[in-house]
Amino acid sequence: MPSPIRPDLAALSSYQAEEYLSLDHPIDKLDANEVSVDLPDWFKQKLGAIAQSEILANRYPDGSYLNLKKLIAEYTGVQPDQISLGNGSDELIRSLLIATCLSSDSKHGSILTLEPTFSMYGILAQGLGIPVIKVPRHHNDFSIDIEAANIAILSGTIKVVCLVHPNSPTGNLLNAQELAWVRSLPEHILVVIDEAYFEFSGHSLVPELAQHPNWLILRTFSKAFRLAAYRVGYAIANVELVTALEKIRLPYNLPTISQLAAELAMGHRHELLSNIPEICQERDFLFTQIKNLGISVWKSDANFLYLRTPKDSEILSSLKTKGTLIRQTGGGLRLTIGTPNQNQRTLERLKESINYF
Amino acid sequence: MPSPIRPDLAALSSYQAEEYLSLDHPIDKLDANEVSVDLPDWFKQKLGAIAQSEILANRYPDGSYLNLKKLIAEYTGVQPDQISLGNGSDELIRSLLIATCLSSDSKHGSILTLEPTFSMYGILAQGLGIPVIKVPRHHNDFSIDIEAANIAILSGTIKVVCLVHPNSPTGNLLNAQELAWVRSLPEHILVVIDEAYFEFSGHSLVPELAQHPNWLILRTFSKAFRLAAYRVGYAIANVELVTALEKIRLPYNLPTISQLAAELAMGHRHELLSNIPEICQERDFLFTQIKNLGISVWKSDANFLYLRTPKDSEILSSLKTKGTLIRQTGGGLRLTIGTPNQNQRTLERLKESINYF
Repeated sequence: MPSPIRPDLAALSSYQAEEYLSLDHPIDKLDANEVSVDLPDWFKQKLGAIAQSEILANRYPDGSYLNLKKLIAEYTGVQPDQISLGNGSDELIRSLLIATCLSSDSKHGSILTLEPTFSMYGILAQGLGIPVIKVPRHHNDFSIDIEAANIAILSGTIKVVCLVHPNSPTGNLLNAQELAWVRSLPEHILVVIDEAYFEFSGHSLVPELAQHPNWLILRTFSKAFRLAAYRVGYAIANVELVTALEKIRLPYNLPTISQLAAELAMGHRHELLSNIPEICQERDFLFTQIKNLGISVWKSDANFLYLRTPKDSEILSSLKTKGTLIRQTGGGLRLTIGTPNQNQRTLERLKESINYF
Repeated sequence: MPSPIRPDLAALSSYQAEEYLSLDHPIDKLDANEVSVDLPDWFKQKLGAIAQSEILANRYPDGSYLNLKKLIAEYTGVQPDQISLGNGSDELIRSLLIATCLSSDSKHGSILTLEPTFSMYGILAQGLGIPVIKVPRHHNDFSIDIEAANIAILSGTIKVVCLVHPNSPTGNLLNAQELAWVRSLPEHILVVIDEAYFEFSGHSLVPELAQHPNWLILRTFSKAFRLAAYRVGYAIANVELVTALEKIRLPYNLPTISQLAAELAMGHRHELLSNIPEICQERDFLFTQIKNLGISVWKSDANFLYLRTPKDSEILSSLKTKGTLIRQTGGGLRLTIGTPNQNQRTLERLKESINYF
C-alpha cells in the first residue's frame, strides 16, 4: 500500500523511557538521574500560587523568555543573547542538528558520538535522516579514542561532535588530553558539550566559550534543579549559533509555568542546590562500597555511578524485583544516587543479587 | 569565517509572534485567536493544587500520555492509539514534516500550502530545508484553486498537502467541491487537516478518517479550551501514521502539568465550551456591523474575522494606538472575537479609523 511515510523510518526505534511509576509506589526509582528528593514545600506552594493566580491560561506564553534568559545569563556568566531555551535539552539537540546537518540539495552532514554516551543524540539524528558515526571510547576509563575520532573526522562528512561532560552513563569528565583535542577541533564543526550534570561536577567549559565560536554548551533544569516535570533546558553559545537555534525554535516552546518555575529556581538556586555536596559524598561512599563487592565500577563526577558485572541483565531484574529500578545502557548498568536510605538499600540489594548469580 | 550553520538558514526568518503584554495592560488583545476570557477560578484553583500537591517536580513526566489519550479518544470518537500529543500543534507539524518529507539520499519531498493560510506550515518546512509550493486561493471566497493545486501536485514532488479547516486567517470551511477533491487525493500524499478551530465551526473530518489512511487531523487545547499557556496539541490519524509521529516525538514533550491541565479540561469540557455559542453570535453580529461600514469582510466559521481595507497597515496602527491589537496577515487583517465589550470597542475604533483614512 502506498504510504506518505519515509521508508527509512521503519528501522528507527524510539527512545525507551524509564518505566513510569505512580506517586505512592514504594520503589526506589534510580534509573533516570533525577534527584530523589522533590522540591521543598515552600517552592511548590509558590508554583501552585503561580498556576492559580499569575498565569492567564488562555494566553500564549511570552516567547521571548527575556527574564529567564537574564537570570540564566547571570548564573552562567554570559550575555542573555547567548542563551536559547528548549523543551528540555532534547528539543535543543534536535534544533542544533536541524541547523547544521540538514541539506536540501546534497547529502546531509553526519554527527560523531563517542560510545557509550547519551543515546538521544543518535536517536534524534536518525529521526532526521542524519548519519551517526559512532566511535567507541577506551575500555578502561571511557576516555575518547582520539586517534579513531580524528580518522572519523577526516572522512569530511562530520558537522557535529557530541560530547557529554561529564559523560552519561560513564560519569567521567573530559581529561586534559581530551580537552586539548576539543580545543583543536576546526571551526566548521559544531562541538556540543552537554553539561547536564554540571551542578554535580563543578566543571564547565562556559568560561572558554568566547574563544570558541563553534562550541555550544547544553544545560538543564531537570537534574540538580529538580524540575524534570516542567521540561526546561538551555543552550549557551556565541550569538551567531544562538540566532540559528532561535530560527529553528518553535515560537512558544515553553509553557508559561515552565518559564516561571525555572525563574523561581534561578532566584532560589543556593537553597535548591544546597543538597548537592551530600549527593556527591553519597556517590563517593557508594563507589567505594560497590568496589569492595568486587564489582567493576568507575569514579563519577555526576549524580550516578556506572558499573559492569558479568550478569548485568540478571542483576537489573533482580534489583527490580527487590524494589530498586536502575538502567541498563551502553553495555553496563547506570545507577542514580538517591537518598542515604535508598543508597543503603541499593547496596544491600546489589550484594544479595551479586551473591545469588 | 567557517561556520557549522547551514548556509540556507540565513534567508529564513522565524515566526513573528504577537506582541506580548503584561497581565494588567489595558489593551484588547485580539491578535492571536485566543478566547478573551480566562478559565474559571475553580479550574485555576485545581491547576494550582495540582502544581502544589500532585506533581513530583523532580520526576520526568509519564511520556505515555495514556490517560489523556483515552479522554481525547472519547471526545473525538477514535481509539487512543490513533492519537499523538504535541507541545502545541507546532511540534506535531514539525514531526509530520520530518516523518514524510526528509530524505537522506535524494531531494526532499515538498509541501503544498493554499495561500493565505497558517504561516507555520511554510516556516517549519523551510527550517527543515523542505521546499514549500504555495498556490493562491480564489480571491472572492478563499476557496482552493483546485486546478492550480492539481497542476502543482502533478509536479510529483509534493508529499504533504496542508489544509486548515476552517482556514486561518480567512475563516472558511472546506466547501463541497473542495471536500470532494480532498477525498480524491492519492494515498502516497499526506493530507493534513488542521482543525484548530473545530469547537467554533462544529465541522470535522474525523468521522471520515477510517476511509482515508493518509489523512491526519490536528486539534489544539490552545483555542476553545483556553489552555494556550500550557501548550498541548494533538494529532488524530490511523495507527500507522501515529506510530511514525511517535517515533519522531521527543520522549517527554509534555510537562506533567500540561498533561494534567488537558485532562482536567477534557473532564470539564461541557462547562469550558459553554461560551462558544456566544462567541459565534458575537462573530456574526460583528461581521454584519463591519460589512455595514463598507469594509470587505468574510463570513467565518472560527473565532475570528478576516477583513481587507485599502489601508490595512494604517488601520492596524490606528487600532493599536486606540488600544486594540489585531493581526495583519496574508494580505488582510485578522481580528479575534473578544468579549461583547471588547467587540463593541473594536467596532467603534474601526469606524473611527476607517473614517480617518
